[in-house]
Amino acid sequence: MKMEIIKTVKEMQEKAEKLRQTGKIISFVPTMGYFHEGHLSLMREGRKLGDCLVVSIYVNPTQFGPNEDLDRYPRDFERDHKMAESVGVDVIFYPSNGEMYPAGYQTYVNVEKVTQNLCGLSRPGHFRGVATVCCKLFNIVKPHYAVFGRKDFQQLVVIKQMVRDLNIDLQVIPMPTMREADGLAMSSRNVYLSEKERESALSLSRSLRMAERMYEAGERNVERIVQEVTNFITGHPFTKIDYVKICDVDSMMDIVGEIDRPAVLALAVFVGKTRLIDNHVLGEAITF
Amino acid sequence: MKMEIIKTVKEMQEKAEKLRQTGKIISFVPTMGYFHEGHLSLMREGRKLGDCLVVSIYVNPTQFGPNEDLDRYPRDFERDHKMAESVGVDVIFYPSNGEMYPAGYQTYVNVEKVTQNLCGLSRPGHFRGVATVCCKLFNIVKPHYAVFGRKDFQQLVVIKQMVRDLNIDLQVIPMPTMREADGLAMSSRNVYLSEKERESALSLSRSLRMAERMYEAGERNVERIVQEVTNFITGHPFTKIDYVKICDVDSMMDIVGEIDRPAVLALAVFVGKTRLIDNHVLGEAITF
Repeated sequence: MKMEIIKTVKEMQEKAEKLRQTGKIISFVPTMGYFHEGHLSLMREGRKLGDCLVVSIYVNPTQFGPNEDLDRYPRDFERDHKMAESVGVDVIFYPSNGEMYPAGYQTYVNVEKVTQNLCGLSRPGHFRGVATVCCKLFNIVKPHYAVFGRKDFQQLVVIKQMVRDLNIDLQVIPMPTMREADGLAMSSRNVYLSEKERESALSLSRSLRMAERMYEAGERNVERIVQEVTNFITGHPFTKIDYVKICDVDSMMDIVGEIDRPAVLALAVFVGKTRLIDNHVLGEAITF
Repeated sequence: MKMEIIKTVKEMQEKAEKLRQTGKIISFVPTMGYFHEGHLSLMREGRKLGDCLVVSIYVNPTQFGPNEDLDRYPRDFERDHKMAESVGVDVIFYPSNGEMYPAGYQTYVNVEKVTQNLCGLSRPGHFRGVATVCCKLFNIVKPHYAVFGRKDFQQLVVIKQMVRDLNIDLQVIPMPTMREADGLAMSSRNVYLSEKERESALSLSRSLRMAERMYEAGERNVERIVQEVTNFITGHPFTKIDYVKICDVDSMMDIVGEIDRPAVLALAVFVGKTRLIDNHVLGEAITF
C-alpha cells in the first residue's frame, strides 16, 4: 500500500480514530526528520509493533532556544520520504508550524523534576517544548506504541514521566543508540561537523568505553570517572565540555560520591560550534 | 443497567477503550462531587449526547491553594451516588489521591494567558491544577464530549484553550449556570453560608441583573458599571469584594474604557469566609 502523507491535525486524528475503531494497532515514531540509521531502527521496531506505522517529521520550534540551531537544522523531505518508504512506513505526519502552533497558542506541559539537570540546565525551556509537542503528537496520532531512541536519554525519561503522570494510554518503547562504524552516535547534527571536528567527536564514545572499563574494574567513585572522561575529551582539539555527569537513571539527579544504583554517564560536548550528546548506562555491555 | 463505580485509572481506560472500539459515544462530566441541580443539568446534557455517560467525582488537591478549603470541601458520596443514578449516569469514576497523583508525580499543564486575570490572579496555581487534572481525566475517560458549566466561566475558557492547544480530540460543551429560585448561583460552597450570609450573597446575582439593565439602556463604560456593581454588593453585610471585572470573553483580559466586544462581567466576592463567584455575559438575556 502506498505511503500516505498527512499534513493536518484533523485528517490525522480521523485516520487514527478509524484505525483504532477497526482494532488496528498504531505505532508511532516522532522525529525532526533528516533521517539516519538511528531513525530507521526506530521505524523498523515500530513496523514490528503496529499494524499502522506513523512517523512524524516536524522541527519543533518550541524546543529550540533563541541562540540555537532552529534555522539551520538540516531538512530534506524528499530524502526522508524515500527512506521512510524503504522501511515500510504507512503514514508520514508532516504538519506546518501554523497547524501545530496556531495564533493564540499558549499551553505548555512541564515535567518539573527530571528536567532540572543535564540538558534541562543547559537548554532552558527545551524539555517544555519536547513534552508539549509530544503530548500534542500523542493526541493527534493516538498511538498504542511510541518509539524513542536512547541517545536522547533524558528526553526518554521526560517522555516516560509525562506519559505516566498525565495517564497517556500508550507504551513508550526505548531503543538502543545507533552508531557509525567508528562509534560516533548517529545524529542529524553530525552533518555540521568538519572532517577534523568529526575526528575529535570520536572522543565522546571512546570516553564512554573508557568509563565502562573503569566501572567494570570496580571503580565506583563519581569524581574519578568524571575527571578521567573530562580529561580524555578535552585532550582533543575543538572540544568544549558542556557537561559530563553521572546521574540516577530514573530521577536524572547527580549521583554524589559512590555509584550505588543504576547510573547513566551523560555527556554534552561542543565540537566546534556543534553540540553533541551521548550517554552510557554503566554496567551495560558496550557494543561499540 | 446498573451504574458502575470505577476507582482505578487502568479499569476506566479499558472500559473507555472498549466503548470506543464498539463505536459508542462517551460523554463526560468532571466534578468535585457534592452535587446540586447545576451538576445534574450537566449530566442530563451528557445523557443526551452520549451512549455512555461518565461522571468523575474527585476533589482535586492541586487546584486548591494552601489557605483554601480543600480539607473542609463538602463530600457525600452516598448522596452523590443516588443523585447520579437518578439522572441515568452509567459510570462514576471515583479515584483516590494515590491513584491520581502517585509518588514522584511532577507533570503540570499550564495555560499561560487566559489564566492571568480574575481567579488566576486571586488563586495562584488554581488553573494549573484544573488544567492538569482535566488533561489527566480526558486521557483516562477518553470522552467525545466533556460538559462544563458556565458558572466557572474562566475555567471553561481555560479548558477550551487547552483542548484546542493540546489537540485533545473532544468537544467541550458549555452549559448555563443553574440558580436557586431567588437567583443565587448554585455551588457546592453555598452550604458554608449562614442564613444571614446567604441573604447577602443574593447581592451577586442581583448586581448582575442591575448591570445588564445598565447595558441594555446603552451604558458601555466599564468603570461606571463596575462602580455600580461594587457599590451595590458592598452595601450588603459580610461582603468583601475579591474582584469585579469586565473582560473579553475569549482572552479574559480586562476591557478598558468602553465595551466594544463580547464581554463578561465576572465577580468574586467573599461572603463571610466563603468565596463565591458569578458572572454574566453582557447583552445576553437575563433568565433569573
